Formats: sequence, structure tokens, C-alpha cells
Amino acid sequence: MNLDQIYAPVRPGLDLVESKLEEISGNEIPLLSQLLQYALLKVGKRVRPALTLLSGKFYNYDLETLIPMAAAAEVLHIGTLVHDDIIDNADMRHGKPAVYRTWGQNSALLLGDYLFSKAGSLASTTENLRVIRRFSETLMTISGGELREGSHNFDLPTARDNYYKWISDKTACLFVMASECGSVLSGCPEEQVQALKEYALYFGLAFQIIDDMLDFVGDPSALGKPIGSDLSEGAATLPSILYAEKHPNDSLVQAIIGDHRKDLVPGAVEKVRESGIIDECRSIARGFSEKASLSLDNLPDCDARRSLKALVAFVIERNK
Amino acid sequence: MNLDQIYAPVRPGLDLVESKLEEISGNEIPLLSQLLQYALLKVGKRVRPALTLLSGKFYNYDLETLIPMAAAAEVLHIGTLVHDDIIDNADMRHGKPAVYRTWGQNSALLLGDYLFSKAGSLASTTENLRVIRRFSETLMTISGGELREGSHNFDLPTARDNYYKWISDKTACLFVMASECGSVLSGCPEEQVQALKEYALYFGLAFQIIDDMLDFVGDPSALGKPIGSDLSEGAATLPSILYAEKHPNDSLVQAIIGDHRKDLVPGAVEKVRESGIIDECRSIARGFSEKASLSLDNLPDCDARRSLKALVAFVIERNK
Repeated sequence: MNLDQIYAPVRPGLDLVESKLEEISGNEIPLLSQLLQYALLKVGKRVRPALTLLSGKFYNYDLETLIPMAAAAEVLHIGTLVHDDIIDNADMRHGKPAVYRTWGQNSALLLGDYLFSKAGSLASTTENLRVIRRFSETLMTISGGELREGSHNFDLPTARDNYYKWISDKTACLFVMASECGSVLSGCPEEQVQALKEYALYFGLAFQIIDDMLDFVGDPSALGKPIGSDLSEGAATLPSILYAEKHPNDSLVQAIIGDHRKDLVPGAVEKVRESGIIDECRSIARGFSEKASLSLDNLPDCDARRSLKALVAFVIERNK
Repeated sequence: MNLDQIYAPVRPGLDLVESKLEEISGNEIPLLSQLLQYALLKVGKRVRPALTLLSGKFYNYDLETLIPMAAAAEVLHIGTLVHDDIIDNADMRHGKPAVYRTWGQNSALLLGDYLFSKAGSLASTTENLRVIRRFSETLMTISGGELREGSHNFDLPTARDNYYKWISDKTACLFVMASECGSVLSGCPEEQVQALKEYALYFGLAFQIIDDMLDFVGDPSALGKPIGSDLSEGAATLPSILYAEKHPNDSLVQAIIGDHRKDLVPGAVEKVRESGIIDECRSIARGFSEKASLSLDNLPDCDARRSLKALVAFVIERNK
């Protein structure tokens, strides 16, 4: 199944989310409006809104609350990207210059803050206290997790565990929130809410592992950013960690992360590509995706369940 | 009345807010805990929590919701300061180096994000939907307002109006939210909620005007930052605007704001001090403070009302 087919059960809903994002992008402050349009519109695959809507489709598919919630998940996600790009000194995002490259750091910082509060405001329109509380905790997990320095303090015996904790906080956490809030808003029984959260956690881990793998082997023009970005920014992701585990006497990764030897990045990328590490990464991701899929087995069989299963399979095989 | 006397009716509540802030500062992530302690504890006059508690003291003074709400207002405020200091390249805050000077920009950026979400999470524990909604809108107003560039695009005919709009968004807005949420949580009748919001708006304007005035004439060690900081950062506040209005043929202020001539700042500060502008600023602030005080006349006469009136009078006469 391609993404259009996977999204088909919630296509009308996703179109309404898109309209909501367009509505948000219109603002009486001209600079803010420009920034919002640049950051929010026609970017990304809208995975998080799709998760909210698909998770909300098992019971009462109430678009009046699900649409603002799905938009909130996407707006929060984009807010974190805008700030991440400042932190990582990233050049490109979604195939165009990062917001702070075009408008400067101060505007990007304020745009991120605005997006966080807009997202909170959208979540609050659901008038569901559990959803509102879960929503506000998510950015605490994401920003707190980045301060753990898991990815930058490269210490081999704990590197892989740190990595999983790190991607759980930075990526899976938002997936879990998107699914939980969608299912809660639809009146899903608690046991099934928990199943959808488990699905979203494993899905998020698999998603990020593939993302990190593509940073070594993807097509730069399809990815919208150069190869080896993570290592250049000093982040040790799964491919680097597997490489270091396999070659304990080769301090290549440590030199890049610890001593900021950016000149060594192309060589490291090449070494990772030539080893069997990429296949191993995909296989680890596939393990998580299978767990994700299994989590859904006690949910009612319907088009939304088929799509959620297909979505996680699609993401594992993606190459951009 | 001194600040201790003004705060007396809500002293036990303010102590509980302080305990709440200490509780928040303990975090399992060591760096985050250090950052939180540095930014949150033993800083500032706690004006916003005091506003929430005093505004909540006319009817049902329910500390179970008022304490997290008062803490939320302070945490949000400090989050905006942490980001503002990055934006303004400010050296000092509350008499010590700004967070980003000590821990670097990335940690400061993430700390601000964490504080925003923590504040939202605290507000959500009130379980009051109006309060939660108002809370999330506040950061939209503050961050959006900064993107208006009112203070940096110095255009004389509209400068004073832009300035009022700017300080309304960046300062008074949070005062209004603090008062509104406090009064709503105490079950205050709507007419009196509106009166307290009006009070907080005028109070906020007066507060910021005095702050901006002290940037020209205050004692640097008491203020915790050097004199002329605003002009150095390119911000035209009321004293500079009044100077430019009175001396339309002197392009001093425009040269500092427009051409970043920081070398002209000490001379400009001196000129403003020697003119009658400082008295005029205090007189404008006093006008707002009188309006603030008048707004309270239809509220029940009680210790909280006396304190709110004394607070606005205190702020006008303060010199740090």
C-alpha cells in the first residue's frame, strides 16, 4: 500500500487538518504569518495527524475534537523542529532552508514559542482534561530529554540504551500522545487506548531508527538534507553505535562526537555503508514494527486498523 | 507599605508557591535540575503569583487550584525571560549571568521550552477549562507580539502607540492572565473578573514603563543589569520615544536603533536624564496606576483589595 491508500480512511479528516493549518497560518502580524506559512504548509508526511485520526476511528469518530487535536500534534511537532534546527545548526528541513537560516535565529525562536502555545490552545479546544494534560506533558518530555545529553555523551557500554531512551523521548513520545489523544477523544475503552499507545511507542522507535539510518544511505534530494547530518551535528545514532560496538578498537565515532572532527564524517559514513550495519538497523526497526503491529491485534478489525498496520510497514521500507 | 506588608494577606500562599517551585526544580535529569534551580529559585519579586493569589482572595480562596496557577504564571514568565535573554544578547538577569551565558544557548533554549510546557501542565491541574485556555493563549500573545517588531522599527508618528501595544503584549498580558485566572478560580462574579483584568492591564503598563525608565536612571547593582541595556539591544522604550518626540531634529535615537550605534548609548542616556523626561515617564506611569486603582472600586473592600492598590502604588515609586 502506498501512503495515499493508507491514509484513505481518514483522507477527508486530513484535508480538514490541512485547512486548519492554513487557517492558523493567517495572522494579522505580517512577519508571523510569513513564518507560519513557511513552516506549517506543504511540509512533511503528516504522520502524527494521521495517527490521531486513525486512532480515533475505532469508536466515535468525532471530527469536531479530533481535527484540532490532530492539528495540535502537527503544530507541536513543527515547533520542536524549528527549535531543533537552531540547536543543531541544521541547514535544511523538508527540502528548503531551515527557518532560522532564512529569517534569523530570533524569529525562529519566537516562532517555535508561538507554535507551542498555538498547539496548546488547539488541544485545549477539545475540552478533554486528560488530553490537555497529556499534551502539555509531551513537550516537557521532549525538551527535558534533549537535556539528558544522551546522544552527545558517547559512552559505549550504555550507548545503545541511551539512544533508545533518547529517541523514545524525542520522537516516540509525540507519536504516543497523538495516538492516545485520538483514541481517548473517540471514547475508546482504556485497554485499547493502552494498546494504541504501545503501538505508537514501537512505531515511533522504528520510525526514528529508519530516519537515522537514512541519514547514512538516503538520497539527499529526497531527504531534503545532506548525508551524514547527524554525525556532523555530533549525534551518535544507531548506525554509529553499531559501528563502534563492532569495532571497539577503532575510535572513529568517538573522534567525531567527542573531538568534533567533522572532517572524518564522510569516511565514517562510507565505513558504515560498507559494513552490514544498514541491514542490521532495518532489521532492528522491523522488530519494533512487528511489535507495533502485534499491539493492535485485540482492537476491532476495521479499515483504521489495517491502515495503522500498513503505515508501520510502509515506514520501515521507506527510503525518504 | 513595603512589599512584605503588601504581600501579608497571601504570605502563606506565596510560601506554598515557593515550595512548588522548589519541587519543580528537582528533576532526575541532572543538567535540567541545575538549570531549573538557577532560573526559578530565589529570583525576582514574585509579582505575578502575588497577583493570582490576591485576585483569588475576594471569594473562595481555594489554594488547591490557586497555588499551581500562581506557580504556572511565574514559570511561564521565567521561561519568556530565558528566551528573551537569548534574543536580546543580554548579559545579566536578576543580578547574575543570564542562563544562556552560563550554560550556552542550546540549554537555555531547551530550558525555556521545558518551562513553557511545565507551566501549561501546572495550569492544566486546575481542571478549569477557561483558565487552561487563557493560559495557552498568553504565550501566543507574548511571542507573536515580539514578532510585531514594534520596538525595533522606530517610526516617530506611531512610536508611542507601538510601544504601548508592545508592552501590553509582552508584560501586561501576563499580568491580566494572572489576575483573571486567580479570580476565575475563586468563583468571582464575571463583572468583577473584568474589573480585575482592567486593573492588571493598567498595572502591567505602569510596571513596564517604570522598568523602562529605571533602565535610564536606576542603580545598576540593584537592577542587576547595566544602565542603557534597552537602547544597547536596539529597543526604543518610552524615555527614548519621548526624547525623540521633543527633539524631532536630533536623530540620536534613530542612529542607535536604526544604525546600531552602540557607542552613542551613554550620551543618549545622559541626555534623557538631563531632560525632564524621567519625571514625565513616572507621571505617565502614575496615570496608569491611578486607572488601575480605580478599576478596583466596585470590588469588596478587604485586605486583598488594599494590597492590590498598595502594590500598584509601590511599583510606581520603586527604584529597582
